[in-house]
Amino acid sequence: MSAPQHILCEDKSATFTGWAYTDSQTLKPWAYHPRPLGPKDVEIEITHGGCCGSDVHIICGRMVNPTVGPIIAGHEIIGKVVAAGPESGHQVGDLVGSGGLTNACGDCVECNAGQEQLCSKMTLVFNDYFKDERGGIPQGGFADRVRINGDFVHKVPSNISPAEAAPLFCAGLTTYSPLKNHGAGPNKTVGVIGIGGLGHLAIQWAAAMKCKEVVAISTSDNKRDEAFKLGATKFVNSKDPEQFKAAFHSIDILLVAGISKDVDWNELLSLVANRGTFVLLAVPESLMTFSPYELLMREVNVTGSLIGGRRITAEMLEFASKHNVRPWIEKRPMSDINAAVQYVIDGKPRYRVVLETEAAAKI
Amino acid sequence: MSAPQHILCEDKSATFTGWAYTDSQTLKPWAYHPRPLGPKDVEIEITHGGCCGSDVHIICGRMVNPTVGPIIAGHEIIGKVVAAGPESGHQVGDLVGSGGLTNACGDCVECNAGQEQLCSKMTLVFNDYFKDERGGIPQGGFADRVRINGDFVHKVPSNISPAEAAPLFCAGLTTYSPLKNHGAGPNKTVGVIGIGGLGHLAIQWAAAMKCKEVVAISTSDNKRDEAFKLGATKFVNSKDPEQFKAAFHSIDILLVAGISKDVDWNELLSLVANRGTFVLLAVPESLMTFSPYELLMREVNVTGSLIGGRRITAEMLEFASKHNVRPWIEKRPMSDINAAVQYVIDGKPRYRVVLETEAAAKI
Repeated sequence: MSAPQHILCEDKSATFTGWAYTDSQTLKPWAYHPRPLGPKDVEIEITHGGCCGSDVHIICGRMVNPTVGPIIAGHEIIGKVVAAGPESGHQVGDLVGSGGLTNACGDCVECNAGQEQLCSKMTLVFNDYFKDERGGIPQGGFADRVRINGDFVHKVPSNISPAEAAPLFCAGLTTYSPLKNHGAGPNKTVGVIGIGGLGHLAIQWAAAMKCKEVVAISTSDNKRDEAFKLGATKFVNSKDPEQFKAAFHSIDILLVAGISKDVDWNELLSLVANRGTFVLLAVPESLMTFSPYELLMREVNVTGSLIGGRRITAEMLEFASKHNVRPWIEKRPMSDINAAVQYVIDGKPRYRVVLETEAAAKI
Repeated sequence: MSAPQHILCEDKSATFTGWAYTDSQTLKPWAYHPRPLGPKDVEIEITHGGCCGSDVHIICGRMVNPTVGPIIAGHEIIGKVVAAGPESGHQVGDLVGSGGLTNACGDCVECNAGQEQLCSKMTLVFNDYFKDERGGIPQGGFADRVRINGDFVHKVPSNISPAEAAPLFCAGLTTYSPLKNHGAGPNKTVGVIGIGGLGHLAIQWAAAMKCKEVVAISTSDNKRDEAFKLGATKFVNSKDPEQFKAAFHSIDILLVAGISKDVDWNELLSLVANRGTFVLLAVPESLMTFSPYELLMREVNVTGSLIGGRRITAEMLEFASKHNVRPWIEKRPMSDINAAVQYVIDGKPRYRVVLETEAAAKI
């Protein structure tokens, strides 16, 4: 996605350096000038960055629209505020975090409803452009610094470590938001397909929300024991026809946090209870095709969910703080980012890699 | 669908005669023995039967499972109670109606929630078999008589004529139920695709529910004036790119009451507002295929709706009575049924053909 040239906007007095995708999967150091610090903006010295599947999508050039570099990915950003505009609502020295959503108009129906992710001027933290009158191109968190509208920056709760806080800002929010929006609670059975960065948090949220059952669904038994430790009450190995069949029509809210290339959409829908909801969270690599039968005869709902707005982000952080929901992480130095990306591509993290910059030692 | 032979059950002392599909589109008179009149059952002398697209689907052998005759279609049934079991809740002489749903277990989660259409023992009025211990095969309303569980039989409100009441029991219910379930009202824009038997009632319900806008969507301007008479506040000719584009992302609840063979599902989804709901009511002749984009980036819901349970049927009849919602009908003698079916196949009714038996003259 390229920005109209006339609205490009750079602060030549500031130079931030990050690990950029340019034209191949190998990220290279790259420096850029950010937007001038506006009255609502904060400048963050980055300490930690979670490495999410969407970052890898960009880095591998797998998006629907071809990735046009240079792009600094990274959208689970933690760091210290080192400069704060007078209307930012933040103070220098605050430990803060920010996620995939970096800007919105602030004044439309969606923004007023706290659903800034659906605002037509919504801006993602990278691979996007600012739609406001100042213009410019945002860059992400695999870097030393970043400037972000303070509205989309949240204080890290004091009982959550900065490294553990990082994945909450995308994986945490992406899974918390649909559970809340679709009424997860004691009278609902929640299912989670794919136990990875998103799924391992989804299981924890659903358990903390005291859902009737929390069903972890995976393509092998490898993560079975850990699923129960995370809070699952049932485990389904989806390659086992007996186990799969036993789960038919049983799940009220099915979060689809992982999709294989050869996905059979009808098979997945068959897990959903009558009038239950199938929520797509992961980006499939193909179109969705299914029979209308499950929709017509069982009134199943098929929907998706995209990160979340400011209000639910704040709620999610408070819920994590109070209910002791924490991502399971593996820390790596930010300088090892290329090895870390390969590790993610290989599906090895249990369950989230968090990259640490040198600034992490100072907090 | 064939019934297990051991539960076939017939009352040899009673013979009902209807217009049956046997092996071709031409319906022929055929006599059968109904189930014995159970304590909850009523026997209805039929006066009127609406002719719905689903009847024609069966009659033309277009269902997913091949139609196995003889089958008497007809599921918008009006008539007089001529025999009533002691636990039926009805009296001989009552003018009553019944729809597509003819039986359910009465004791499961779905039945207790008033969603008998989702009960696993739900029985349709024809092309199905009874799942209770009495067994047998139900037959529909293009006949002189029918026996039905009184729970699924409703009194016709006194201010609705019998002929006009008939289409309420399928077309009316099928469109009223999703509007209520998805929160139609003053803060919602409702869209209706396909102005036919279902759609012309959907427009009326949405108008009576005082929805913010009622958008009628059709493939030509032929029904434009009538759409406004029915209560639409906007009309979209879907073959006109400008009109179609102007409706993008505008509809909160989109009822899909008609689907062309060459449907572009993504195009239809593009009409739905962020977080809006796409409700399939008609049976498409192909699989549904669409991009996950609208689900992920706009959190659109895709679902379907199947007739409705006992509770919402009663509510719908009361609403129609109070708000003067009436189908626009064309009456024909039941004996002209084959010509009427062809008329429906040709898409000519404005908007519902209702067949009258000789018994209609007596009420």
